Amino acid sequence: MKFKEFVTPIGARYFEDYEADCTYDCGQRLVLESEIIEFAQRYDPQPFHIDPLEAGHSIYGGLIASGWHTGALTMRLLVENYVSTVASLGSPGIETLRWPAPVRPGDTLAVTVEVLETRVSQSKPDRGIVRSEVRTVNQKGVQVMGLVSANFFLRRNTVG
Amino acid sequence: MKFKEFVTPIGARYFEDYEADCTYDCGQRLVLESEIIEFAQRYDPQPFHIDPLEAGHSIYGGLIASGWHTGALTMRLLVENYVSTVASLGSPGIETLRWPAPVRPGDTLAVTVEVLETRVSQSKPDRGIVRSEVRTVNQKGVQVMGLVSANFFLRRNTVG
Repeated sequence: MKFKEFVTPIGARYFEDYEADCTYDCGQRLVLESEIIEFAQRYDPQPFHIDPLEAGHSIYGGLIASGWHTGALTMRLLVENYVSTVASLGSPGIETLRWPAPVRPGDTLAVTVEVLETRVSQSKPDRGIVRSEVRTVNQKGVQVMGLVSANFFLRRNTVG
Repeated sequence: MKFKEFVTPIGARYFEDYEADCTYDCGQRLVLESEIIEFAQRYDPQPFHIDPLEAGHSIYGGLIASGWHTGALTMRLLVENYVSTVASLGSPGIETLRWPAPVRPGDTLAVTVEVLETRVSQSKPDRGIVRSEVRTVNQKGVQVMGLVSANFFLRRNTVG
């Protein structure tokens, strides 16, 4: 895996700045028990996400974060460190999304993005498509989430 | 699409209650602008999710919900109406996740689940796998999210 740092700051980043076969570090985030419960009470109130006692008797042996929460926390790190604030046009979807291991209270999640391929849109030449693999890993190096998705970004030379 | 209602309440539902080729109604949910912004400020603070003015100048022509928010709202309806509270063992992931149209403030989202196939686990015969397609549609009948995923549920006859 070839780690790479962006030359351009996040507010001046365009399609051309995302390089295939490069992996970008997107920072880390501590996950507190209180926010696991708060998120899940609102969006995914299953016993093993909201009740430490019941979670202790579940197959997970303790409280675990909702997969949607892990996704949302990962997105936050992507938005802070990776996704251009001026050229992002969003994403049409995700090819695969896996949660191979649970996220537990006190875990620190680290996110990386590997750009798999980049290509200019044929139908809309002002933008390009960046296909990438996002990995979320805990402090033990265990992967807790992985996804492959496509994102649209404006091209630099067609703007302004 | 064959709509079906569960015979068993959500607290007494096991693997056997999820029937292949049946579609289950999972209810509806109004989405307010305030919660679109609140969710996105926390997890996906891109301009078109948090700032109505900037969103108005974006390709979306107005504020749209984070895809993770749409996923979380859909999950809430699934947990309230579909996912057994006693037999769910979670999900290893999602095969495909699409956001074919944006969610906007004031939209009412309706969720359905079509069970594609069910099978007993070979390695762990106390549980079964339910593969299903979840569709989230707005008040105009436009699909805003779709996903295919697998979920594990305990079997009724192996419990107690």
